[in-house]
Amino acid sequence: MNTADPTTDYSQGAAFVRGQYLPIGQATLPLTDWGFLRSDATYDVVTAWDGAFFRLDAHLERFAASCARFRLDPGMAMPQVAQVLAECVRRSGLRRAYVEMIVTRGQPPWGSRDPRQAVNQFYAFAVPYVWIANEAQRAQGLHLHVSDVQRIPSASVDARAKNYHWNDLTMGLLGALDAGFDTVVLSDGAGHVVEGPGFNVFCVGADGVIVTPASGVLEGVTRRTVIEMAQALGLPLQQRALPAAELRGAREAFLSSSGGGVLPVTRVDGATIGDGRVGAVTQRLIETYWAWHRDPRYSTPIAY
Amino acid sequence: MNTADPTTDYSQGAAFVRGQYLPIGQATLPLTDWGFLRSDATYDVVTAWDGAFFRLDAHLERFAASCARFRLDPGMAMPQVAQVLAECVRRSGLRRAYVEMIVTRGQPPWGSRDPRQAVNQFYAFAVPYVWIANEAQRAQGLHLHVSDVQRIPSASVDARAKNYHWNDLTMGLLGALDAGFDTVVLSDGAGHVVEGPGFNVFCVGADGVIVTPASGVLEGVTRRTVIEMAQALGLPLQQRALPAAELRGAREAFLSSSGGGVLPVTRVDGATIGDGRVGAVTQRLIETYWAWHRDPRYSTPIAY
Ligand SMILES: Cc1ncc(COP(=O)(O)O)c(C=O)c1O
Ligand SMILES: Cc1ncc(COP(=O)(O)O)c(C=O)c1O
Repeated sequence: MNTADPTTDYSQGAAFVRGQYLPIGQATLPLTDWGFLRSDATYDVVTAWDGAFFRLDAHLERFAASCARFRLDPGMAMPQVAQVLAECVRRSGLRRAYVEMIVTRGQPPWGSRDPRQAVNQFYAFAVPYVWIANEAQRAQGLHLHVSDVQRIPSASVDARAKNYHWNDLTMGLLGALDAGFDTVVLSDGAGHVVEGPGFNVFCVGADGVIVTPASGVLEGVTRRTVIEMAQALGLPLQQRALPAAELRGAREAFLSSSGGGVLPVTRVDGATIGDGRVGAVTQRLIETYWAWHRDPRYSTPIAY
Repeated sequence: MNTADPTTDYSQGAAFVRGQYLPIGQATLPLTDWGFLRSDATYDVVTAWDGAFFRLDAHLERFAASCARFRLDPGMAMPQVAQVLAECVRRSGLRRAYVEMIVTRGQPPWGSRDPRQAVNQFYAFAVPYVWIANEAQRAQGLHLHVSDVQRIPSASVDARAKNYHWNDLTMGLLGALDAGFDTVVLSDGAGHVVEGPGFNVFCVGADGVIVTPASGVLEGVTRRTVIEMAQALGLPLQQRALPAAELRGAREAFLSSSGGGVLPVTRVDGATIGDGRVGAVTQRLIETYWAWHRDPRYSTPIAY
């Protein structure tokens, strides 16, 4: 590892690439890495908020599980991954950051088509915190579109392992943006909503029960946080299939993502959710989400 | 474009990266390109054989169609793409090459999640010809495994647009290699075989009819060549759903790919296909495939 050169500008973000720290703008991947040419990679994203990682353990745990599922080896133990991530944030100087860790397949010897012969590669970077919804959208609630595009099923790609297979999400998002919606949630082909580009989805019924899809989705750390917050607050929550019609008729709806936490949805496909304003349960979860960032159980301070 | 520096070694392959030609070992992609971080990209692969492209027009046509389907802009017209590909081959000096053209989404301004705001990027490279099957496998026939892993359905990702969503193929291949098979074909969840890592699949029944799956597959240029060769040779061919049981009980079986053309399969999941030797129809198609490489209708010579 190179030591920090005080003249290098990491303020746009810092990356760890093949054993070296670099400004994010200089971070590259070989064109021939199967991480690109076959999207043969896994990753995770943890955030730093006010100088501390939020739920770092949960993200490292999921990252290790994703690596195991796809038979990818980060080449270092999780405490060392944590050190690299902290060093990326430290160099960037960012107090609020979006921090990504990646393992790619790498490349087998030329001519070989055997993934087992490849040397896996580890990458990481820290950039400014990413919001899935802008300030106005967070205040007024997002306008969500339920797309006909079907999320890649787990019989094809294990949704529990975080992966870059996003063409379905991207094409769904393009359709939604073109039609004037803010974002999109995909379906499962049987009338249920599943997840969107970077988030899980929830609704609150007239009975006050919070519902989120049980399967075919990434087990979001923010989703897990919502489930744990509901428990802590005594709010009923069910993990089960969520029909699109139920979401459209819900009293409240929201998204969960490391890119902004709990994000209110106030319209779905042109129809108003509840009274069209950010719901009371949603508001309580948003406040609790940010309060938990100051809870030492979930917070790992970074030494800048 | 830089002019060729006679001291630069392109013999391992040459790439075209952000407007510059580079030795393949120096070709990189920004870590933050959505082509990597969301596998938001399309590509095509054409081969050069004995100093000429094979069916370059068909590959460019498919590449243009893939770009349109995914709303990716190569930033140049197809004749210009052809020139870049020829220049990559010329610099490499390779007479037999595997030549890839790529468009990635690029990256929208920081913070934006809108793919429409990204500047798409074009890449290309030429490397030594890639064989999906080694010499012994080509002589004796491959041992194919039919995997339970399901190919990503077209309701999620349009299989007709060539894409890097290969986790299903990779996990299926790992399972097959571990179990001692040579390669793998995925299924569709309804008992039909679909396609494998880089190839389409065919069989020949006792009635002499060649069968290949009709949908849920990339419309391989080699697949198209097989269909046209069958027509030219007066061999009956059907495009329809292909049950795994029918493949297992077939008289002959073979794969089609730009990575080797027509490749014989002589065993499927431990069972012998036909008499266990490369079939007569397969053999005829292999010979015709290579003969067509010398046909000026399909061949575009490269000026080295
Ligand atoms: C497909 C998908 N679903 C859900 C999520 C939300 O997960 P988390 O709460 O861990 O950010 C993400 C995060 O990027 C995602 O990519
Ligand atoms: C998934 C898939 N199917 C089929 C093929 C065969 O297509 P072609 O004959 O054009 O090489 C490929 C080629 O890479 C492929 O990736």
